[in-house]
Amino acid sequence: MPAPTAIVLLSGGLDSAVTLALAREMRFETYALSFNYGQRHAIELESAKAVAAALGALRHVIVPIDLRCFGGSALTSDLPVPKDRLPEEMNEGIPITYVPARNTIFLSFALALAEVTLANDIFIGVNVLDYSGYPDCRPEYIKAFTAMANLATKAAVSGNARTTIHAPLIQMTKAQIIQKGLDLGVDFSLTSSCYDPAEDGAACGRCDSCTLRLKGFRELGREDMRRYVAR
Amino acid sequence: MPAPTAIVLLSGGLDSAVTLALAREMRFETYALSFNYGQRHAIELESAKAVAAALGALRHVIVPIDLRCFGGSALTSDLPVPKDRLPEEMNEGIPITYVPARNTIFLSFALALAEVTLANDIFIGVNVLDYSGYPDCRPEYIKAFTAMANLATKAAVSGNARTTIHAPLIQMTKAQIIQKGLDLGVDFSLTSSCYDPAEDGAACGRCDSCTLRLKGFRELGREDMRRYVAR
Repeated sequence: MPAPTAIVLLSGGLDSAVTLALAREMRFETYALSFNYGQRHAIELESAKAVAAALGALRHVIVPIDLRCFGGSALTSDLPVPKDRLPEEMNEGIPITYVPARNTIFLSFALALAEVTLANDIFIGVNVLDYSGYPDCRPEYIKAFTAMANLATKAAVSGNARTTIHAPLIQMTKAQIIQKGLDLGVDFSLTSSCYDPAEDGAACGRCDSCTLRLKGFRELGREDMRRYVAR
Repeated sequence: MPAPTAIVLLSGGLDSAVTLALAREMRFETYALSFNYGQRHAIELESAKAVAAALGALRHVIVPIDLRCFGGSALTSDLPVPKDRLPEEMNEGIPITYVPARNTIFLSFALALAEVTLANDIFIGVNVLDYSGYPDCRPEYIKAFTAMANLATKAAVSGNARTTIHAPLIQMTKAQIIQKGLDLGVDFSLTSSCYDPAEDGAACGRCDSCTLRLKGFRELGREDMRRYVAR
């Protein structure tokens, strides 16, 4: 019997890399799924490609999402990236890479790819502790999406399959996620979570995402092998 | 107080035109939302534009969805369109304009547009009676999507807003839908539901969608003003 197939949402960041590693550890063949939704993400997508290859994904699918049709004010990509904020200051305002109804759109495409590839399992690296401001990262949201998904497709309705949404990081701290990744041999130098990387791809080290990531490594007493702008 | 705003999914076909007319009758200002997901749809999108304008939508947003990244076999647009099938034969096989997890993807983008425009209401022209083969056209699916949507966005979670998904046609026959549209002054000559229109935009009159539509008009003893290929 061939290994079961899973769809893994892969952003190129640290959390989703660990999520993919966990899916692989569970012996799933994986379709990594990323989205191209704006100009800041070229480096993220390159990171996602490298992570998908390093962790042995069967295929890496990149879906273009163009929300410019929603109008200029909807997507805030021209705002300056906040720097040097403390973790407790971060849940203020709309993040720079704002996509409305983000996880709902991402999971919907994952469900579509699952339908096409006959996969019953979807992995998403959401996490409640570090980002309490996002309602679509909570367990009750994941549960409701699962209930909807199991009414949405023919396979689910025929009783031949049930879609399971795995959110294995949901209750973990950043340090715990990093530790799990290290245990599984994830090469974090390939991952990129920076909201404002330099031209050459180096992470800024000062945006919210870099701050949380560096704090996680510091708590573990480990070095982040990601390349940063000289500090 | 300004009129409340609603998002209306608009395909260019008959059902969604009546749905938009119903939303307008309920005094909503409307954002019509269509999707561009393949080459057969140029005429449908032109119809959607004409319907949105005729029924006074505030704006018509067209989102490009490119699922070619899913791989060639996923989208069946090169198959021949079945012709001259009886209504009872139609729930066989994958329809020609197949988008996996279709209504889930469409409603997710509607939810995103609702978030951006501060709309609390989303209208979708799904219908159980004519298309019993589609699980994502059933009331229980719509209910589950609504429950998920109300856990997905900050507005919903803060208690400032509740998203309602309206599916006003869900229990109606095609003839009842057409009658409602006629009552509301919908110009059905603008709408296009044909799966295989001619180069000049004329409907084929023989695909499943044309067959159901013509049957509906016939039951009412009314003439369909849509232009058809000479029969």
